[in-house]
This record gives sequence, structure tokens and C-alpha cells, in this order.
Amino acid sequence: MLTEIIIIGNELISGRTRDLNGWYASGCLLSCGLEVSGITTVGDNYDTLSSVLGAAVKRSHFIIVTGGLGPTEDDLTTKIVSRVLDRPLFLDQAVLDHLKDKTKEIDMRWSPSLENLAWLPRGAKILDPKGEMCGFSLSEGDSLLYFLPGVPEQMREMMNRFVIPDILRRYTPATVPRHRILKVYGLSESYIADVFKGLSAELAGVMFGFYPAFPENHITITVRGKKDEETERELDRTEERVRGLLGPYVFASDEKTMEAVVGDLLKERKMTISLAESCTGGLIGHRLTSIPGSSLYFERGIIVYSNKSKIEMLGVKKQTIDTYGSVSDQAVREMAEGIKEIAKTDMGLAVTGIAGPSGGTEEKPVGTVFIGLSVDGKILSGKYCFSGQRDKVKLTTSEMALDWVRRYLDGHPFIPGI
Amino acid sequence: MLTEIIIIGNELISGRTRDLNGWYASGCLLSCGLEVSGITTVGDNYDTLSSVLGAAVKRSHFIIVTGGLGPTEDDLTTKIVSRVLDRPLFLDQAVLDHLKDKTKEIDMRWSPSLENLAWLPRGAKILDPKGEMCGFSLSEGDSLLYFLPGVPEQMREMMNRFVIPDILRRYTPATVPRHRILKVYGLSESYIADVFKGLSAELAGVMFGFYPAFPENHITITVRGKKDEETERELDRTEERVRGLLGPYVFASDEKTMEAVVGDLLKERKMTISLAESCTGGLIGHRLTSIPGSSLYFERGIIVYSNKSKIEMLGVKKQTIDTYGSVSDQAVREMAEGIKEIAKTDMGLAVTGIAGPSGGTEEKPVGTVFIGLSVDGKILSGKYCFSGQRDKVKLTTSEMALDWVRRYLDGHPFIPGI
Repeated sequence: MLTEIIIIGNELISGRTRDLNGWYASGCLLSCGLEVSGITTVGDNYDTLSSVLGAAVKRSHFIIVTGGLGPTEDDLTTKIVSRVLDRPLFLDQAVLDHLKDKTKEIDMRWSPSLENLAWLPRGAKILDPKGEMCGFSLSEGDSLLYFLPGVPEQMREMMNRFVIPDILRRYTPATVPRHRILKVYGLSESYIADVFKGLSAELAGVMFGFYPAFPENHITITVRGKKDEETERELDRTEERVRGLLGPYVFASDEKTMEAVVGDLLKERKMTISLAESCTGGLIGHRLTSIPGSSLYFERGIIVYSNKSKIEMLGVKKQTIDTYGSVSDQAVREMAEGIKEIAKTDMGLAVTGIAGPSGGTEEKPVGTVFIGLSVDGKILSGKYCFSGQRDKVKLTTSEMALDWVRRYLDGHPFIPGI
Repeated sequence: MLTEIIIIGNELISGRTRDLNGWYASGCLLSCGLEVSGITTVGDNYDTLSSVLGAAVKRSHFIIVTGGLGPTEDDLTTKIVSRVLDRPLFLDQAVLDHLKDKTKEIDMRWSPSLENLAWLPRGAKILDPKGEMCGFSLSEGDSLLYFLPGVPEQMREMMNRFVIPDILRRYTPATVPRHRILKVYGLSESYIADVFKGLSAELAGVMFGFYPAFPENHITITVRGKKDEETERELDRTEERVRGLLGPYVFASDEKTMEAVVGDLLKERKMTISLAESCTGGLIGHRLTSIPGSSLYFERGIIVYSNKSKIEMLGVKKQTIDTYGSVSDQAVREMAEGIKEIAKTDMGLAVTGIAGPSGGTEEKPVGTVFIGLSVDGKILSGKYCFSGQRDKVKLTTSEMALDWVRRYLDGHPFIPGI
């Protein structure tokens, strides 16, 4: 079963935007047992797109096309399909009525260019007739084509809700590959590679992939098998081996994020947390509150960006700041203690540091960060020197701070600071 | 001059890794005036790669190929080039000697598979004879092919040091395309499409692109011209036209973000700001502090996630919350006023809302958000009902709140709430 993907968008062949759709669609298709033979990325160009589409229909059974479906004039996909496959466009009245209802429903003004979305090539089947997203399928000879929006979130939803189920109705794979992702924080990629050297040879039927996902490293385990349960057991066994080798550096599997793991642990232990953020500027709070139901354990946070606010809001002593500076072990300990007392939570987590690009000194260069955790009547603190630019320092700091909470609650030792 | 890119790697067509090379190479080529017609991504597969390479040589002048150049047996590029272009492989003794010297120099054991790197198709020219990276060029008829490593850092270095200079020696672009991005917030894609209908026809030499970048919409303007200054002037004129049509909905151009625009305005006006965030959980603070130097205007923020914290930290009246709820116009006004008073800043910005998935009611469904701004002795407030899931509600709320500050400081009317 030849399967290919066509990605449309000028922004993707001019260095402006990195494609997400080819990557995502190929992973989805593989999970149905369909290996993608190629991904072709082209601009919103009549001739190129015509020739690419024409060639694809001649050779492939399943063809996923993304992009060029919107209401604007650079959206050419439907017109080109009409020409290449010789299918005149027709106005689908049901789609048009539905669009008009939808815009009314969300209080949006009807705009004439929205009508473009209701013109479809003959034989096209709207994928989500009750939805708000455009996208249709079309069969041509031996080929089945799926046309999806280019906006990644929409494309993914269409892929998962309509395309994959539709493909699985038509095609039963002999073996199915199953994946698991193990997420690692605190170990370098080359360290992980060394650990895996022996393991890859030993577990012949298992494929490993290693992907840096700053500041984390993700390991994928892939197993092919006839039955789901069988491959699932093999995955479980392999995961256990990997966890045995990497210990508590593995913090989650699959879609789970660090903030979700921390949230689960807090809920499990019935504990609450409050934050005192300086250099992260609210990022830790943002991450914690990205988890639905986080109000159960997250009480409040204070972004103490100025020294004055550290003193006024958290009771950090002016003398501490004058003597040691606001980026210091002494300050972060007072911050952690202060926020815990004020918020009356079980844990008080504090970070202070120099995110850069300016503000660094010889003694405290950019990337110098202190983390403090006040819990169970004690205050833990540590110093780090993270590398990278402002956004990376902020992100690593937030990750390390969350990892402190995870490790504390899970009874693992900390990754010591410097 | 037809230009295309071929990307080789199993990991790129199986959802494991997102390609970086096609994106990067297309941007490099465009900066030389070469528009890429397509990027083809294929696995390390003999047949597919042969047919893709064969087709490329027939139609394109410049062809960049990345990946499949390593010493292992799944690296097939050189062998396929040899077959498709009918050029027998030869052992390049100079390359072999150089490789042996290099491995000695870095104390690496010589491995027989490294010899593979010295076998090249007849006519191949090593790009970096003194370096450690493989990669060669080859001319075939009217086509010039560059074969580069798949590791992104190596590929980029080769591209910048060898490929681009080589291309510019052979090709002087008649015209150079220049882009500008205009960022829009508060208008739908279809509304923008309607506005542009006339404009595109009128400005024949200008190309427009429309890209949703939630919660913003980005418009790219592309102009081709002989000289930089000339195209720059054309871009300026076009930008002015677009801004005339879309008004203050255009908030920035090119790389500038909403938070950077807000930061610049605050600096310009020598004003300070403080935040009271509920549903955004720290995201507004995170965005403001992502800008270097934001400590000049951002004083502090409080993430008042619990009702208790709203009362204790901001002086919101318990009665207000009991009567109207914490997600209410009354509450957000007290929050904005409270944070401004406590932080003694020129502006106090507050948000409260229901990010979901739970917590919604008939009267206040998920997505209900109130924004409050206390400034110049008055308090402005508004209600919105944003759609989408938790992350989208948080993101839109942060964007709208920042846009309030921008519009206030720039003297534009607000986007009215509902």
C-alpha cells in the first residue's frame, strides 16, 4: 500500500515556517501500519502542485494533502484538484448553510470569501459536516485522497477523528507498530547513547529513537507485532529495562508533561503549592496551570521581578539583598519560606536568577540560578549555571524547579546544583 | 532557475523527527534569490530515492540533497547517485588519507566502515577537503547537485561555508525577493481575505500570503526587485496601504512580538506595569519577561489562583466574590485597582476567567474572561467569551490583555468585549 503526503504552503519552502504536518501525519499513518514513501512540500503554485498531485494519484493508494484550503485567494488546492482530476467544482448548499449557521452562532460577521469553502470538486466528501473545519476526501481510481487544513491543530484533529478511522475501515495491516515515548530530564544525549549501546543489540526486535526536546531528552521505543496486547507487553518489558538503566531521570511516558506529573503527585499526596518566581517571570505558574484541575493544588504565585517586590511581598530582608544580592542562596531561601508562609501551602517553591542577556557578572554569569523549596519544616536550596539564551534559561529553570518538586514527592535524590 | 531540495532519512517519514534541513536550506536559497519549487522527503530507500533523484536532475538547476552520507550500511546516497547518474564509484585516495589523519588526530580508532566515505561517484568534488564533514558537489548536464550531511548543524555549516558561496559564484540573481510580515490581532482570516481582494489585483507586483498563527493572523508581503532599496521602498508603500486598510489591528511587523511592542511602548512612555493574573496563571508575566530588559517596566505580578489569594493579596472584597463571583466585572476591576495600588505602578492589568474544561456554567461558560486595566485614575474593564480549549483560552486572554495595554498606550480604541 503506497502512501504519500503532500504539504502545501509558500511559507514552508521559503524558510519562514517549519512544517509540522508531514511529521505528524507520517507518525499517524505508521501507527496504522502504513509506511509513508515520501513527503512532498510545495508552494501555493498552480503548476507545481498540479504535477505533484498528478504523479501521486498515479502511484499511491493513500494520499494526504494539507494546506491551501482556506478562504483566501492564495488557497488553491480545491481549484487544482478540480483541474488535475477533471472534476468540476459545485457549490455544496449544505456546507454553505452550515457555514452560515456557524458564523451566526459564534457572532461572526458573514464574509463573502467564506463561500469559497463551500465550492467542492465533484465527488468530494466533507470530512466533518457538523464542524468548523474544512477538509474533504475523494477517491480516484485506486487512490484515496484526504485534503486537510494546513493549520496544525486543525489538521491533527481531522487526522485523528476522521482520516485514521476511515483508513482503518479500508485497510487491515498485517503487523502494527506501537510506540512508547520515555521522557528524560537531567541526562545528556551522549550519556543516554552510551547506556543504550548494549541494549539495542540485545533487544533485536525493538527499535529505539533518541530525540532531544529541550530541556528534555525523549526516547522512543518501537515494537512491531501482530496483536496489540503482544506488542504492548513487549513495550512494557522494554520500558522497565530502560527505567532500570536510567532510574528516576525518566520522569514520564508518552504524552505526559513534567507539570502533569508534578500535579498528579501533589494531588495524590493531597498537598498544595505556592510559587515565588523571579527570573522565570510566571512561566512555572503558567506550566502548572496548564493542567486542568490545577486549582486543587496550586494556590497562588508571586512574580517578584523587582527587589522591592521581593521585600514587600515575601518578607525577604533588605539586608539579605544588600549583602548577598537578590540572586543568591540566602535570597531564594527567604523567598521560598516567605511564599509558603503567606500562602499557607504545604510547599513554597522559589527561583531567582539571571536570565540574560545582560545582568551577568564574573561571579554570577548569565544563567546563574538559585532554586529553593520550603517543605516539611525545612528549606532546600541549590545553585545552577544554565547555558543558553534568555528563553532557554527561563525554560530550564522552570523544568528544574518542577523536577525538584517531583523528586521530593517521589522520594528521589535531587540533581545536585553546583 | 529551478531549485529543489531532497531530504533523506527514515526518521523523517515516520513521525520520529521533524525535519530542519529543508526549512533551513530553503531560507538560505531564497536569500540568494532562488525560490525553491519543492522539498521532497524520502527514506533511505533505493528505489524511491533513485526515482526522486532522476526526476530532479531532469528539471532543476540547483539541487540540494541532505542525508544518507554516513559510513553505515543504511547510508545509500552515494551508491544511488552512482547508479542514477551512471558514474562508477572510485576510491579518492586523498580523502582516505585525510580521514585516517583526522581519526588519528582526535584519538579515534580507525574503523573499516569509514572507508565508505572515501568512495565517491566519478566527477564528485569534496566540498570541505580539509574538514571532518562529508559532502560533495557534482554537475550533471544543466544541474548542479550538492550532497550534504543530514545532521542539521553540519548541514548548516556546509551550506553557509561552501554551497551558498559556490552558488553565488555561478548565479547572479536578476531580482531579489524581500519579505515583510505584518502581524494582525483581532480580525478573522476571512475578514482579512475580503479586505485584500481588491488590493491584490491592484498591486500586481506584490505577492501576499496569509497565515493564521493563533491567536494572531500574519500577512506576508513579498516584492521582487533589482535593488534592495527599491524593493524596500515598495515594501514600505505596501505596508502603509495595508495598515491603512486594517488600522490598529496591525500591531507589529516582522519578528516583533506583541509583548515586545507593549514593552517598547511602556519604555517610550516611561511607564511601569504590574499584573494580577487568575486564569492565565502567569502566562502574561512570562510573555512580558521574555523580552530582555523588561525589568525596566515590569515591576511585579501576582498569580491569584484561589479566591483567598484574591482577597488577601489584592484587597478584592469578599462580598464582591460572594455576590458576583470571582469571574466578574466587579472582581476584575478590584483586581486591577488592587495590584496597581500595591505595586505602585502606572498601570495595573488584571484578568480573571474560566479556562476550562470544567468550571463553566450556563451564565458563564468556559472561555468567559474579564479584563481590567487601571491607569490614569480610571479603571477600564470588558468581558469576552473566547472559544477553544484551556491552552487556547489562556493564550487568547494573554494576547487580548496585552493588546489592551498596546491600544491604550497608542491611543487606539479597544476591541469592545461582549
